Amino acid sequence: MIKKISFIGSGNVASVFAEKFSSVNIDVINIISRNQKTGKELAQKVNAKYYKSIRRIDDCDMIFICTNDDNIVKISEELPDILVAHTSGNTSISSIKRKKRKAVIYPIQSLSKNEKVSFNEIPFCIEASDLETKAKIHELISKISKNIHTINSSERKLIHMSAVIASNFSNFCYIMGYEILKEKNISFDLLKPLIKHTAEKNLNREPKKNLTGPAARRDFKTIKEHLALIDNKKYKRIYEIISKTIIDKYEK
Amino acid sequence: MIKKISFIGSGNVASVFAEKFSSVNIDVINIISRNQKTGKELAQKVNAKYYKSIRRIDDCDMIFICTNDDNIVKISEELPDILVAHTSGNTSISSIKRKKRKAVIYPIQSLSKNEKVSFNEIPFCIEASDLETKAKIHELISKISKNIHTINSSERKLIHMSAVIASNFSNFCYIMGYEILKEKNISFDLLKPLIKHTAEKNLNREPKKNLTGPAARRDFKTIKEHLALIDNKKYKRIYEIISKTIIDKYEK
Repeated sequence: MIKKISFIGSGNVASVFAEKFSSVNIDVINIISRNQKTGKELAQKVNAKYYKSIRRIDDCDMIFICTNDDNIVKISEELPDILVAHTSGNTSISSIKRKKRKAVIYPIQSLSKNEKVSFNEIPFCIEASDLETKAKIHELISKISKNIHTINSSERKLIHMSAVIASNFSNFCYIMGYEILKEKNISFDLLKPLIKHTAEKNLNREPKKNLTGPAARRDFKTIKEHLALIDNKKYKRIYEIISKTIIDKYEK
Repeated sequence: MIKKISFIGSGNVASVFAEKFSSVNIDVINIISRNQKTGKELAQKVNAKYYKSIRRIDDCDMIFICTNDDNIVKISEELPDILVAHTSGNTSISSIKRKKRKAVIYPIQSLSKNEKVSFNEIPFCIEASDLETKAKIHELISKISKNIHTINSSERKLIHMSAVIASNFSNFCYIMGYEILKEKNISFDLLKPLIKHTAEKNLNREPKKNLTGPAARRDFKTIKEHLALIDNKKYKRIYEIISKTIIDKYEK
């Protein structure tokens, strides 16, 4: 059973995980971070010891690497040969080097230090080097979420990409809407009930069935008028290509 | 005071409006629709009289045109000279012809016959030909929503366009995510908590502050890997142009 864990990193993912595990009585032993300020702050919050260097790591059952994807290989090479996991959606389990036991624990949610999120609902993708490690990881994660899925590295990459498209890109659609209104001093509040309703509809019904608007109903006149209204050339190009893709897709 | 209203159209907007007004004791007199089936169904629901032709319209205080935008001019020309309103986001009030009193009542929400929506929260954009008409319209709409805004035709067009981008296009992002997963038999359910959380974040904080993901953090390696993973050429192009726009926007 995993009882003592340490974290490399003190950013959003490390912070949210360390605090959550600490709250369910898992001992957080070390926070290792190049950033002394956030590293020490997090260590204090979860009653752990802060170190700047990964060479100084105290006895524990497992180490979480919660850094930029690019640093995972190098950091894993320098860690002792105990169970090491990373939390990246787009990084293969094989990026963890020179360890007998490895795992990936990828939460399909954007985690942010100062934001509450209902942990029990977060889908966790887990992958492990061997069955025993997988059982241990499953047991650990089940303390914080009831939504655990065994997913291999290539499936996880696809899930991560779909998450970027469905979440980051939809957020960017909100940004475009916000800016177009802002330029004329119109409040974005006007769009909020619609944004809420649109997302909620897609929780209950296949997204394709929920699409409305000028492109879905092939209203070329409105599309043309909208394109003439958009000043920002990039936004105009995005409006054009998404509308065209919808029109072709819903061809009669 | 407006007490008796009639509707041209029996689609989603006409249905939702007629049922809602009927529920707050406004008399729905006629439903006029070329579609006999939906027209008669709606008339029965709200205890109104159905006619196929707009030449036969009974005595009422106001007529709502809830048809395709393209038909508003022609239909308004044939209606008697009483207060006439349309419900289109993208159509000027001047498209209502030959009437002394005209109005626009545009709800910023996608309305659908079989979908419950919390009416009180829907922002209504209203515009009227004169102050007396505006007061009447305001009084009428206040029976169904507490979120009423006076908005002129050119502002309303911008709001409609922003709504298309923030709602229809974000819905299209969900569709892309759904299809990429579906092709590999991975359930879209995995993305639902993230979609919900992303929308909710933007109700409380300016969208630009909520953007995360590879493009926002200039993670070119992940973007390149994602592009290599997308088979659909149009989706690849959309991924590319949105990422590029985000990268330029968040330039360091």
